[in-house]
Amino acid sequence: MIERVIPPTLKNAVEQISELPGYGEKSAQRLAVNLLNMPRGEAKQLIETLMEVLEKIHPCRECGIYTEEELCPVCADEERDRTTICVVEESFDAFAIERTGKYTGLYHVLGGRLSPLENITAEDLNIDSLIDRVNRENIKEVILATNPTVEGEATASYIYNLLKNKGITISRIAYGLPFGAVLENADDFTLAKALEHKTPI
Amino acid sequence: MIERVIPPTLKNAVEQISELPGYGEKSAQRLAVNLLNMPRGEAKQLIETLMEVLEKIHPCRECGIYTEEELCPVCADEERDRTTICVVEESFDAFAIERTGKYTGLYHVLGGRLSPLENITAEDLNIDSLIDRVNRENIKEVILATNPTVEGEATASYIYNLLKNKGITISRIAYGLPFGAVLENADDFTLAKALEHKTPI
Repeated sequence: MIERVIPPTLKNAVEQISELPGYGEKSAQRLAVNLLNMPRGEAKQLIETLMEVLEKIHPCRECGIYTEEELCPVCADEERDRTTICVVEESFDAFAIERTGKYTGLYHVLGGRLSPLENITAEDLNIDSLIDRVNRENIKEVILATNPTVEGEATASYIYNLLKNKGITISRIAYGLPFGAVLENADDFTLAKALEHKTPI
Repeated sequence: MIERVIPPTLKNAVEQISELPGYGEKSAQRLAVNLLNMPRGEAKQLIETLMEVLEKIHPCRECGIYTEEELCPVCADEERDRTTICVVEESFDAFAIERTGKYTGLYHVLGGRLSPLENITAEDLNIDSLIDRVNRENIKEVILATNPTVEGEATASYIYNLLKNKGITISRIAYGLPFGAVLENADDFTLAKALEHKTPI
């Protein structure tokens, strides 16, 4: 029986991998087999790189973008427009916006989206620190660039309600993006258009 | 620009993950973000488990099933029918067959399938060692249980040609499985039926 034949270390690894969002038992097995089938040196190198990521990378003190420094390169750059904050779900969304070269302001990474199904509430996201930044700094505009999904919309709407009486412009990234898409997968042109046509809420 | 904003360690990790079979840049980013978003202790535990897998797990000396011992539990079990070998692509295929409880013979893990597209030839698979086992041991039957895909069929057919003049029964796992499916994803009942109705080639 499988309980006897599958090595305990491998079973344990598959169980741990399948806890990751988007993974199930089969995809976890596939990842484990792919690692084991790689030349052992390359596989160890990959695992060491992942450990290095966990040791070196942390959220920027100000905006939450994953960085190796205390302040990320955007927050540390005095040339950026420090009156505008673009709010994104994850760091890779900010990296995707940077790739367009069309945005010169700052970011704020929520670290996810409101999701009743996954039991993610406002307390699990970096929302308090966004409000703090708006209160503390000379912010004139907040662009809500959460994903154009039901959960992203709910998150944008939640944050809008917290900010609407602060006398600043609050924008939502424009719907050049098809509903239901994932922001970090958008092509650069679409993403640039969506930023260009951002509309005040 | 992204080259400036994405931390080098993270960029390096995403590049290495996207080299894994079945991964692209976006799925590699997703894996990296999921790891970083986990509680740091749990993430490190997962990485350490993966490193432990690479350090402890290796192919069984006889059959190639991934195991922590020199001989896997199947090869080490004197009660198994040592005249029958079931040839599978990967260890998890053997684990899936074990789960049915319907097979009492030995295994042989090829470590993949012939694939001209991925440049995988017979030399990359454990085929020589299978022929060796058939020549050396008292083998009466070889069951070819590669996946019922075009590549799995080609692999079975290639091995059939190497074994057909050795005076043993060569069977192919029965087509209870839908064509194009992946063996390790089959449900236990279908897999048991497919073994039960194996047909001589």
